[in-house]
Amino acid sequence: MADDAPGPIRMRGAGYYSEHTTGAKLAIDAAIPLVLAALQRMDLAASATPFGIADYGAADGGTSIALHHTLLAALRARTERAITLTYTDLPHNDFSALFRLLHGLLPGRAALGLADVPGLFTFASGTSFHRQIFPDGTISLGFSATAMHWLSRLPAMLAEHVHAVGAEGGDLAAFRAQAAADWETILLARAHELSVGGRLVFANFCTDANGHYLGWTGGQNMHATFAKHWRGLRDAGAITGEEMRRATFPQFYRTVAEFRAPFDDPGSPVSRAGLRLEECFTRVTKCPYAERFAAGQPGAEFARTYVPTLRSWSETVFSSALDQGRPEAERQDIVDRFYAAYEADVAAAPEGHGMDYVHCFMVIAKDPTAGV
Amino acid sequence: MADDAPGPIRMRGAGYYSEHTTGAKLAIDAAIPLVLAALQRMDLAASATPFGIADYGAADGGTSIALHHTLLAALRARTERAITLTYTDLPHNDFSALFRLLHGLLPGRAALGLADVPGLFTFASGTSFHRQIFPDGTISLGFSATAMHWLSRLPAMLAEHVHAVGAEGGDLAAFRAQAAADWETILLARAHELSVGGRLVFANFCTDANGHYLGWTGGQNMHATFAKHWRGLRDAGAITGEEMRRATFPQFYRTVAEFRAPFDDPGSPVSRAGLRLEECFTRVTKCPYAERFAAGQPGAEFARTYVPTLRSWSETVFSSALDQGRPEAERQDIVDRFYAAYEADVAAAPEGHGMDYVHCFMVIAKDPTAGV
Repeated sequence: MADDAPGPIRMRGAGYYSEHTTGAKLAIDAAIPLVLAALQRMDLAASATPFGIADYGAADGGTSIALHHTLLAALRARTERAITLTYTDLPHNDFSALFRLLHGLLPGRAALGLADVPGLFTFASGTSFHRQIFPDGTISLGFSATAMHWLSRLPAMLAEHVHAVGAEGGDLAAFRAQAAADWETILLARAHELSVGGRLVFANFCTDANGHYLGWTGGQNMHATFAKHWRGLRDAGAITGEEMRRATFPQFYRTVAEFRAPFDDPGSPVSRAGLRLEECFTRVTKCPYAERFAAGQPGAEFARTYVPTLRSWSETVFSSALDQGRPEAERQDIVDRFYAAYEADVAAAPEGHGMDYVHCFMVIAKDPTAGV
Repeated sequence: MADDAPGPIRMRGAGYYSEHTTGAKLAIDAAIPLVLAALQRMDLAASATPFGIADYGAADGGTSIALHHTLLAALRARTERAITLTYTDLPHNDFSALFRLLHGLLPGRAALGLADVPGLFTFASGTSFHRQIFPDGTISLGFSATAMHWLSRLPAMLAEHVHAVGAEGGDLAAFRAQAAADWETILLARAHELSVGGRLVFANFCTDANGHYLGWTGGQNMHATFAKHWRGLRDAGAITGEEMRRATFPQFYRTVAEFRAPFDDPGSPVSRAGLRLEECFTRVTKCPYAERFAAGQPGAEFARTYVPTLRSWSETVFSSALDQGRPEAERQDIVDRFYAAYEADVAAAPEGHGMDYVHCFMVIAKDPTAGV
């Protein structure tokens, strides 16, 4: 595992992530009809073994818990089979927050617990989705949202930007190749895990037909703003060029063509493993913070609520890019200055800022005639 | 879950537990031959489904990792079946430390990781072992060490002691009844989870034929020493009578007769569920700290290394007994004074102090002729 776990991709723990990522939950809620429709197409009586559900890259579980409540109710209406629900994420994830949610122990969120669902058994895995997580044929329904843009390794460090959306030339090619290789690895691992007739429902960050992606749908570009303020710290001498380069997200927002490629080629390893694409479309989920500003919220207040949602998932990329020889307080100060500059930027000219989510929704089936 | 999770039984996280509980690991190592012998008696080819291993109440996984390495090697020598290994504990457990151990990410302990075992899939559950954790028939080998003395609820608060070993009259009867009820519940849940022919290997704290138990094998009584110093704080006015009472461990060290009772009665629910006792014996594991003192270590140094091992599992019982209206620093100070008094006690007269482990080892089989 150690070799394929990218360094700086921990999330802040204890429910911080899902509380500050309202938009992520809205996007997941949009996947509920896809999950229910996929379930309708499945033969639930086909096996005496448990119905295995996986939630890949689930963080603290908060953004998908409503989906699972709906899914479990639909399942229980049709079958008395035992159900397993396994949440996966990297080892550093806050699994205790996840289990406290599942067991109704989070203050104020006890009703979200799943302990009263009859015949349901919940688990966690600390294995990366870049590897096989479950034994062959033990997953009936795999779900994943807003997770698979994380690459298994960082293929290039960018000198003037912080994200592959700003990469060019050889750097961009390296990111693109890594994303393609990872996508095939991810799908082949899932092909092993999935039972025949099982389904995968994914809502992954993407680049859509308009060239839009997370944080850029025509207004201010979020990643360009990150890059501007990180470069600003470098140009002011607060961080080194090496610290500039190290702050590169190990992420890639695949295009629809890139997501489709393994399915469109009947001879690809993924097609030969029996996976078939049933649905594929993109969708923009508007930034709830920007919508509040558009509805009349003062710009300073928008900035004060919006920037923490960026910080929730981006902070460790910047803080771990800093030389670990710097005292902890100094590193904290640099990161605080960075987000303060971003917030001041938004407060001064809020128009166009926002983090619209751009997702590619996919439903994938394991063909009953497949050999695996 | 919330209803049956006892309050004050969190462990300190991030590897602290297993690093400071050398004795617990020694006791678990003594169970390795039992596990290997149980495996020898099992028909591994009997099923195409994964071979399911459970480690019930595993904390951060550190004390049993050597056992699992040995078990997995023995299994892999005999079968290519997929193996699942699921660690269970309460939701507040440090599951991230567990997964970092399993994936070889703990500094200095990378070699203990299990990621290289072919066909092994590791998981965690945050469900109490007082409930069914796995679907029916999905566990082949269940292991548990030093865990099932934790009761599902605190049946009585003791006015003059901190542990059931010092309870009398109605209080003692209440603890005894709770322990019997919990033991039946624990075994019936395991009877459901276990596959036919599967085995359970337990190493539980007990009261042995000499009346000995954890921390009392004829010398200084650890629990009496806890009680003396907690009463001392009360008598000095540092804590209230209510805080004295609330510091009661939700634990019971069952006797061999109590452990055997459900098996010795062929009409008991446990026997009718198909569980059969194959082996049952007690064993004392000497306190490694006291042994170092016996070998010539100065008393003050013994006290300084020994008391932290007590603190690792007992601290939250005392700290959460304190009125939460007290400032955090004051609560910390009281608990620090408590362990400092214990340490001074040991340093002044080290002879006889020590925490020998007294375990009841049991091997239990699910009868192939059982109905469940």
